[in-house]
Amino acid sequence: MTTDPGTPRRAPAGAAVLREDVTDAIRAAVFEELAAVGFARMSIEGIARRAGVGKTAVYRRWKSKLSLVLDLVSAFAAEGLPAPATGSLYGDVRALLEVASHALRHPVASQVIPDLLVEAARHPEISDAIKTALLDPQQGVAALVVRDAVARGELPEPTDPDRALDLIVGPLYWRLVVVRAGLPKGYLDELARGAVAALRA
Amino acid sequence: MTTDPGTPRRAPAGAAVLREDVTDAIRAAVFEELAAVGFARMSIEGIARRAGVGKTAVYRRWKSKLSLVLDLVSAFAAEGLPAPATGSLYGDVRALLEVASHALRHPVASQVIPDLLVEAARHPEISDAIKTALLDPQQGVAALVVRDAVARGELPEPTDPDRALDLIVGPLYWRLVVVRAGLPKGYLDELARGAVAALRA
Repeated sequence: MTTDPGTPRRAPAGAAVLREDVTDAIRAAVFEELAAVGFARMSIEGIARRAGVGKTAVYRRWKSKLSLVLDLVSAFAAEGLPAPATGSLYGDVRALLEVASHALRHPVASQVIPDLLVEAARHPEISDAIKTALLDPQQGVAALVVRDAVARGELPEPTDPDRALDLIVGPLYWRLVVVRAGLPKGYLDELARGAVAALRA
Repeated sequence: MTTDPGTPRRAPAGAAVLREDVTDAIRAAVFEELAAVGFARMSIEGIARRAGVGKTAVYRRWKSKLSLVLDLVSAFAAEGLPAPATGSLYGDVRALLEVASHALRHPVASQVIPDLLVEAARHPEISDAIKTALLDPQQGVAALVVRDAVARGELPEPTDPDRALDLIVGPLYWRLVVVRAGLPKGYLDELARGAVAALRA
């Protein structure tokens, strides 16, 4: 059983010190476990075994597999969607699609989040956590893009930012996560043009 | 333990006769089990218990929980998307969105299929079955709508039908299945107008 012997330099007095390399190994093991068996069948025991640590090392960091997975989702979301502010609606939409197309091919988005969305129907705390970590920030970015475009006269007022987000992210999510098809050359350009036209229609 | 005693009138000689009411009870139990525990944790034993039948009654009909669930998905898909043929691109898109908005609120679409999509990453036979039962027919309908619109001069040739499907269904899937938000009044009309504008852009 591996524990956290760690005598790092400059440990704050009295604070619990957790070895970073152990934390990283556990995080990596969670991704592998999620890919191999999915959230429902995943266990702290399986994660610990895969990470080559004891269960205690996992429980010192997270109280349950749910908090562990939500932590990964939050870390992923924090890299997040920056508000693009390119100076044009097309530029902003194209920039969002670029970021989203990478994010949606990350295992967290293509596998972990859909898995959690399924669990969310049974567990309101999961659905709240996804809303806070992912959906609220996305809607915030969409609101900024819409506000700027309205200010430039590119979109009529009022334009509903949630509907804008549906039109921008929906087609890409459908293709990458549901159909699991690739992106043909020029697809994001076409999609950005299409979303702008749809928003103005 | 309930079996299938059935001595129905006009049973075809030599054919295995399965009681319809038992089959229906099992199907209903599968929906309840999927909602309660999800695909990964669902067992034939749990389904049989919920349906008030023996495991044998389930195994006489389906060889595994996977074939059982795929059968439900196929039955759902068979009600399917009719090719609308309203005489205009807007009319066709609006009709597809109407059907899709009901379908995506059905438990099979909002819970069972996302659950299976998650499993599909681990089990190619699930992903093949979803493709055959759901995606291929949808792409077929989109191809007809695009072909008719091109023939009427409403869309340029070539227009990629898969990209058309992304633009038509993607925003609605995102809103109903991912964000799990409702449809504001007039949303489908706006979305149909938006999709037509996006397809022409």
